[in-house]
Amino acid sequence: MRIRLLVLLLAAVAPALNAFAADPLPSWNEGAAKQAILEFVERTTTAGSADFVPAAERIAVFDNDGTLWAEQPLCFQFLFVLDRVKGLAPQHPEWRTQEPFASILKGDLKAALAGGEPAAAQLAMATHAGTTTDQFAGIVGDWIATAKHPQTGRLLTEMVYLPMLEVLEYLRANGFKTFIVSGGGIEFMRPWAERVYGIPPEQIIGSSIRTAYELRDGEPVLVRLAQLDFMDDGPGKPVGIQMHIGRRPLAAFGNSDGDLQMFQWTAAGPGPRFCLYVHHTDGEREWAYDRASVIGRLDEGLDEAQARGWIVVDMKADWKRVFAFEQD
Amino acid sequence: MRIRLLVLLLAAVAPALNAFAADPLPSWNEGAAKQAILEFVERTTTAGSADFVPAAERIAVFDNDGTLWAEQPLCFQFLFVLDRVKGLAPQHPEWRTQEPFASILKGDLKAALAGGEPAAAQLAMATHAGTTTDQFAGIVGDWIATAKHPQTGRLLTEMVYLPMLEVLEYLRANGFKTFIVSGGGIEFMRPWAERVYGIPPEQIIGSSIRTAYELRDGEPVLVRLAQLDFMDDGPGKPVGIQMHIGRRPLAAFGNSDGDLQMFQWTAAGPGPRFCLYVHHTDGEREWAYDRASVIGRLDEGLDEAQARGWIVVDMKADWKRVFAFEQD
Repeated sequence: MRIRLLVLLLAAVAPALNAFAADPLPSWNEGAAKQAILEFVERTTTAGSADFVPAAERIAVFDNDGTLWAEQPLCFQFLFVLDRVKGLAPQHPEWRTQEPFASILKGDLKAALAGGEPAAAQLAMATHAGTTTDQFAGIVGDWIATAKHPQTGRLLTEMVYLPMLEVLEYLRANGFKTFIVSGGGIEFMRPWAERVYGIPPEQIIGSSIRTAYELRDGEPVLVRLAQLDFMDDGPGKPVGIQMHIGRRPLAAFGNSDGDLQMFQWTAAGPGPRFCLYVHHTDGEREWAYDRASVIGRLDEGLDEAQARGWIVVDMKADWKRVFAFEQD
Repeated sequence: MRIRLLVLLLAAVAPALNAFAADPLPSWNEGAAKQAILEFVERTTTAGSADFVPAAERIAVFDNDGTLWAEQPLCFQFLFVLDRVKGLAPQHPEWRTQEPFASILKGDLKAALAGGEPAAAQLAMATHAGTTTDQFAGIVGDWIATAKHPQTGRLLTEMVYLPMLEVLEYLRANGFKTFIVSGGGIEFMRPWAERVYGIPPEQIIGSSIRTAYELRDGEPVLVRLAQLDFMDDGPGKPVGIQMHIGRRPLAAFGNSDGDLQMFQWTAAGPGPRFCLYVHHTDGEREWAYDRASVIGRLDEGLDEAQARGWIVVDMKADWKRVFAFEQD
């Protein structure tokens, strides 16, 4: 009986002991970026520290594309758009001659996007609206279960950055609540973000289209309308954060100029704050791009990060491993 | 040493034992409503039960006005509007002759509201827009710290229903995440809901006006604009729930027809679901109103509740105590 008590007690404290013993960020090389993350978490979560922050205020926000998973050669949500145009084409014979659909069906992406913003919006609405929310969640869930990256051949859900998964886990183990704040579609991320990132639907913030409540044969549905509701990008990110969280983040993680206002908003809070840019410097294991890139441009943000002392992760130097599927 | 271990162990299991021993809803009289709440929580949270629901899906949504706190003789947020019109009047000399402000300043509420929806919207915008989000949180926080009920003389934050606080606490103790889904202003509730209800800002859903991100002398602010963003009432409630939570609630609590669509949406989910109307039947300890009331009308909802077997709480019979300040 005495031994059983001891075992129970040890089982209860073991996780806490483990936290001290093991490296919570094993895919990070030793260096300034890793050290900055560890130090920030320690000083904001250690009782008695001058910078201690109560658990309820430990809010950490993460951009998704290019921050938690890859975004090259094009934003993964756009792969969904392409597949869905093809899938819906039989129901839309008019698309064979109507742009931008006709070019997509011919496989000519460049021509499809020659129409600029209006063409992109048309594609987004045709592929995201018109279903109920439940139907859309099913469509995205089915698609992501098998969707593969056009260059690596890996499942898109394998194209997530192992070092960032470790940061998410490490923050949560220290009482942080982790949110996604992405320019991507809120309902595009929810069906898989919990499984892949451990982030539940209520902690996903993203761009959205309007929905309307209807009773169809007595059955309530939310219908997805072809009207933009909210663009969660650039100056929209602090707006989305306020709308959904109502509390200023303690820490923000991003990779592009689209995250700059989220960082400014985060950094301007009183007390300790933390902003970290993932800088895509590794053309071998991932993709190297920044100031001149159309996708995930990091230009103004890089200057401001350097001027203000925000952390800039050099993926090539700071990450021991980028993807979980890499050989050790 | 053996004794110390035992003490530690007992301390660890004591809360669990307590949960069995103590009545989690002491302000509820024994009866069908109380029994229904206890039974629902037990069958959805007992491992091995056919109706067991994983913790991540235990979402409970609560209307605020008339469900968690009183709403008579008028919605408390309107008391804020009245006080703020008076507070802002010195900066708006034109209000002395301009309706609906002039009537408010003369104390003639009826005349002020004779202008209908447009007058109400004008009052709402004049008193809720034009500041930054941080300023507005401060204004509401300062106001609610001393705002008293016009009839009871109690602080508005004392006009909360003790039995409902117990339900909130009981649900959370059983792994439920509690949200407010109110027609009231999201930023009107956030400054005090955590202290009063134990519900953090990120779990408050409400009506909103638009905000815009700006740098003012290099300082980022979110400016509250005089434009309606979202009405979280009636058919808006399922829309707000999907936008903020992205998961269908397991349980919903309300008191008026404005909660009907939220109940329909909740009840239509697969597996066990729970909908509960607070019916204002106690004209002595609180206010008695339902089908004919302008504020918090419960008419269609009452019929549907009866037809579908939703729980209807008879405040007079089911609640041992309404407010914490009542004498035992």
